[in-house]
Amino acid sequence: MIDRYAVMLCGGSGTRLWPLSRALRPKQLLALNGKQTLLQQTALRLARHVPAKHLVTVTHDDHKFEVKGQLAEVLPEAVNGVMAEPYARNTLPAIAWAVSRIHLQSPNAVVGVFPSDHSIDNEDAFHRAWLAAEKGADLGYLTLLGVSPTEPATGYGYIQPADARIGQENGHAIYEVARFVEKPDRADAEAFLTQGYLWNSGMFVFRADVFMQLLTEHQPEIAESINKLDSSNIPEEYSKLPNISMDYGLAEKARQVAVVPVDMAWSDLGSWDSIYQRNDKNRDNNVCQGDVLALDTQDSLLWNTHGLLATLGVSNLAIIQTADATLICDRGRTEDIKQLVTLVQEQKPELAELHRTVQRPWGHYAVLEEGVNFKIKRISVNPGASLSMQMHHHRSEHWVVVSGVARITNGDQEITLKENESTYIPKTHRHRLSNPGDVPLHIIEVQCGEYVGEDDIVRFEDKYGRN
Amino acid sequence: MIDRYAVMLCGGSGTRLWPLSRALRPKQLLALNGKQTLLQQTALRLARHVPAKHLVTVTHDDHKFEVKGQLAEVLPEAVNGVMAEPYARNTLPAIAWAVSRIHLQSPNAVVGVFPSDHSIDNEDAFHRAWLAAEKGADLGYLTLLGVSPTEPATGYGYIQPADARIGQENGHAIYEVARFVEKPDRADAEAFLTQGYLWNSGMFVFRADVFMQLLTEHQPEIAESINKLDSSNIPEEYSKLPNISMDYGLAEKARQVAVVPVDMAWSDLGSWDSIYQRNDKNRDNNVCQGDVLALDTQDSLLWNTHGLLATLGVSNLAIIQTADATLICDRGRTEDIKQLVTLVQEQKPELAELHRTVQRPWGHYAVLEEGVNFKIKRISVNPGASLSMQMHHHRSEHWVVVSGVARITNGDQEITLKENESTYIPKTHRHRLSNPGDVPLHIIEVQCGEYVGEDDIVRFEDKYGRN
Repeated sequence: MIDRYAVMLCGGSGTRLWPLSRALRPKQLLALNGKQTLLQQTALRLARHVPAKHLVTVTHDDHKFEVKGQLAEVLPEAVNGVMAEPYARNTLPAIAWAVSRIHLQSPNAVVGVFPSDHSIDNEDAFHRAWLAAEKGADLGYLTLLGVSPTEPATGYGYIQPADARIGQENGHAIYEVARFVEKPDRADAEAFLTQGYLWNSGMFVFRADVFMQLLTEHQPEIAESINKLDSSNIPEEYSKLPNISMDYGLAEKARQVAVVPVDMAWSDLGSWDSIYQRNDKNRDNNVCQGDVLALDTQDSLLWNTHGLLATLGVSNLAIIQTADATLICDRGRTEDIKQLVTLVQEQKPELAELHRTVQRPWGHYAVLEEGVNFKIKRISVNPGASLSMQMHHHRSEHWVVVSGVARITNGDQEITLKENESTYIPKTHRHRLSNPGDVPLHIIEVQCGEYVGEDDIVRFEDKYGRN
Repeated sequence: MIDRYAVMLCGGSGTRLWPLSRALRPKQLLALNGKQTLLQQTALRLARHVPAKHLVTVTHDDHKFEVKGQLAEVLPEAVNGVMAEPYARNTLPAIAWAVSRIHLQSPNAVVGVFPSDHSIDNEDAFHRAWLAAEKGADLGYLTLLGVSPTEPATGYGYIQPADARIGQENGHAIYEVARFVEKPDRADAEAFLTQGYLWNSGMFVFRADVFMQLLTEHQPEIAESINKLDSSNIPEEYSKLPNISMDYGLAEKARQVAVVPVDMAWSDLGSWDSIYQRNDKNRDNNVCQGDVLALDTQDSLLWNTHGLLATLGVSNLAIIQTADATLICDRGRTEDIKQLVTLVQEQKPELAELHRTVQRPWGHYAVLEEGVNFKIKRISVNPGASLSMQMHHHRSEHWVVVSGVARITNGDQEITLKENESTYIPKTHRHRLSNPGDVPLHIIEVQCGEYVGEDDIVRFEDKYGRN
């Protein structure tokens, strides 16, 4: 009986799908193909194969609360398996950390590692290939899933399988890997299409003990650091880990590496054009999301989350409108968005990093307006949640409850406010906002003061460990 | 010595420049060619020729305060000359009303009538032509300015001059009009270009007494109604006036109609493409306004008033982004926007009518957010200005002063609030907000209630006569 685990990788920052994805709101946290978020889809797909409590999710501290929140909605048993990296260190340290924990519990466990920002439309094919890869793992191989290419893509790494198969399972052949190829140029990509090369999906299956041996052999320093990690020293030890990928650091160095070819309608949804390809089209061959009025418009992606988007006499565009930024891009150029995002990072860094609506462990807030000496926020607090006990040196806050019930600590006082009631928090007062009710609490906060930056906050006590 | 008057027409609603223009924010109130608003430019241009107190502006009640505000900024002496129609009735009733007033004061006055939503880059040519047209007026003619066509436009009416000239002045010939031609098809427009036809600019010069005679002769009912109008019966009498244009109602019927051809770099700025043509281009041949990041983008109009607008790999587009609606249009299709606006009017009527920021006689407000049972507004009150004494049946209001000083009547109480102070107006309380200070007052208003529509307002007293 195989003891199965799955590691779901949820790192990475989102530049390729700007302005919908932002550094602090990467692709896997978004719903992009008409279903749940990619993270939620991935978790549910993996939980068809491993027990939910054997699903380990590695993410960055910045996304921890959101990742847990999204898992809680679809697979609550997986919430405890979330591990948060204090620093982003590419895939190998993340995988090593997760596998070392699994190895402690179950040295013979068979572990699958999966990115959380891809879509797979043929789940049955995926599961059959995973089973076949487990056969490779059983033979001691690091076994990859290799996606059969459908176009000469230059944005992926490729795997060349060797001629001889090392096994067969479930109708899937298992090949040794002849070589890994970095992102090719167009000519090579076209040649690969007819030569049996496979896209490197970033999905691996292996035995935990095999992985730990390989790590010790090829990356002894990482192995040492990972073995030293405990709850007391995570930030310090993690900061010393190198920035290195699983492919480069281990797969290309190991002797026993195998690949299972699979055709499973896979997409990395890595560009607005691939989002267009993966969604249902209307009769004008447009993909429309949100409030859109399209007249004489064809072959376009019209994705709107704010206000109205109206088009006339255009075609082949990707248009993405959010509350604070809009992109209009030729659909054939969506791979080049990196250049544009670099400009945004230089000129409007806040638009590359954050959305107007910011997720927090207790709920979310949106800045509605900001001016000299004031800022207005809509704050939504989840039932039972509580902001930290805090204080501001430079601003006072006016709170108006628009729905729900608020429990408020304001200096020495404790009060309860309901809809259409308000209170005032003078600067330097210790205060805390909680939602004791069963429905979300919505308040409008008007901040006044000589400085209204987010960093004017002293946290005294926080149920999410942020003080 | 000629007693000169000018009538500036400021009616019309703005659909052709949606989403920047709206029904309640027409083109003439906007700055579209890198200078003041079109209304302000027109007023200044006319005031080079007539005394500012001889400038009569006819507008609709809806725009009265904004028109006065814009005139106050550039030509304060013209503010008293604003006449507000209670109903929009096309150009003839508006002109007749204004001319009848001028005629009472000065029967021999020479009156020029001018739309306020055009741009004229060669002002000297305009003034010379006006002088020539006054010569035609002196001979008893309704005299038009006819713009020499620069392209086979199908969006304008045309004037065919007769062969014989009736006079000459300032280097300008004055011709009798052979015929008026409605908007032609493309073939006719191309033929007109080589046959000496002129664009009908809607600019007329005539003697006040001649106009009144013509009106009595050809539109006796309008003449009668206009002569009956006094301050006591304007809404009632105005409602009876027919919807009829100066061209159709008078110019095409009169025997003595003349035209002065003029080449003055005129544009009606009637489409986004014409706005593109009239503005300075950057090295990529783009016109950019507001926060714009354009990469590999050419020959486009990028007009942004909200957030960031980013483009990649596109060309020949007109993109107009506002706080609540964005238009992306092929630059060759901007004449067809009417169809689109019709759809907007059907599906999102508020986006066809209003901007998020709404002008009021006392200042302006913007709706920052609206939800079930609440609405948040930023309210700006001009120094010395005052909202009406009012009451709401269905909503309470929380006011937070973010800058300036507020004088507030709240039921029986009168209070003064300054920055970072707040108050609460319970529903059914009579209340009034004033700015007794010398700087603008900014408050944030949070409305709570079972209904937060603008029409829940009972006005008791209003210094702008709105109760």
